[in-house]
Amino acid sequence: MSMRIEDYLCTIPNFPKPGVTFYDVTSVLVDPDGLELAVNEMQAHLQDLDFDVIVGLESRGFLFGMPIAYNMHKSFVMIRKQGKLPRETIAKEYDLEYGSAVIEVHKDDLKPGQKVVIVDDLLATGGTAKAAAKLVEELGCRVVNITFLLELKGLNGRAQLQDYDLFSVIACEGE
Amino acid sequence: MSMRIEDYLCTIPNFPKPGVTFYDVTSVLVDPDGLELAVNEMQAHLQDLDFDVIVGLESRGFLFGMPIAYNMHKSFVMIRKQGKLPRETIAKEYDLEYGSAVIEVHKDDLKPGQKVVIVDDLLATGGTAKAAAKLVEELGCRVVNITFLLELKGLNGRAQLQDYDLFSVIACEGE
Repeated sequence: MSMRIEDYLCTIPNFPKPGVTFYDVTSVLVDPDGLELAVNEMQAHLQDLDFDVIVGLESRGFLFGMPIAYNMHKSFVMIRKQGKLPRETIAKEYDLEYGSAVIEVHKDDLKPGQKVVIVDDLLATGGTAKAAAKLVEELGCRVVNITFLLELKGLNGRAQLQDYDLFSVIACEGE
Repeated sequence: MSMRIEDYLCTIPNFPKPGVTFYDVTSVLVDPDGLELAVNEMQAHLQDLDFDVIVGLESRGFLFGMPIAYNMHKSFVMIRKQGKLPRETIAKEYDLEYGSAVIEVHKDDLKPGQKVVIVDDLLATGGTAKAAAKLVEELGCRVVNITFLLELKGLNGRAQLQDYDLFSVIACEGE
């Protein structure tokens, strides 16, 4: 019987705080078949797309972005939380439910004119992905697609990212 | 002319603090050829090894561990800093130059008797890798190898890890 991604997915009620259900996409990776399926399904829709760079968002975007970059022979560039990248960066602040966060990218990791696919594990509010797309654009590059393994439809991240081509392997009603 | 990993490697003097030279292994990944070479060379010596699981250390171990797990059809398990894993964990504290740190693994991500390869980007003092190996062993598994892209020989991490089979693709005199 063939398995679907959903069969490997683990949900944790009341984490990281009461009332929130956490979708642990990394449970998919513990089974070699789940890992292969997740990477293959994220990669499948990129096959016919013309692009140069996979940008992975810290840190679960690294998990999925790197095997795709390896398989498709693309550049891999990290977007990280503030203070973790050693060379000269540009930064973008964005709002969280409470407070704000800052992400950064190395200025010289992207070249003007490059075509970029942003990869992350999970689309929730879309705040991080939107800030990441703005960083990519500030360096003169074009975001040709944003790819997620899992989309939580209840948080309406698609509305935040309506200017971009989005793809998610699976979508849940959760938030 | 064929390139070596060293040709893609970037060093940053006085980061994260004065007097320390930072080896930025992630600069290797920005070139698709560098990325492929790094993953292939880490993976090459694992080809004849009997193992079940790649354990990646947060967060640069994720970068190299995932494509190897994908290519070799292995399980991928994360070891993360304290408070980031949603399910039941076991934790290990270890010493840093100043103070200490705690890493965790999900209790149910490893099964007793499994054979594990630990992957990280950089061997410095070996403190994190040693704590990771102890966690793996506490869950009844065996560490068959610890693989790094880069080893800084000046910090003598090999001495800390003398009970384990180690591999590094490149070794530098730095610290």
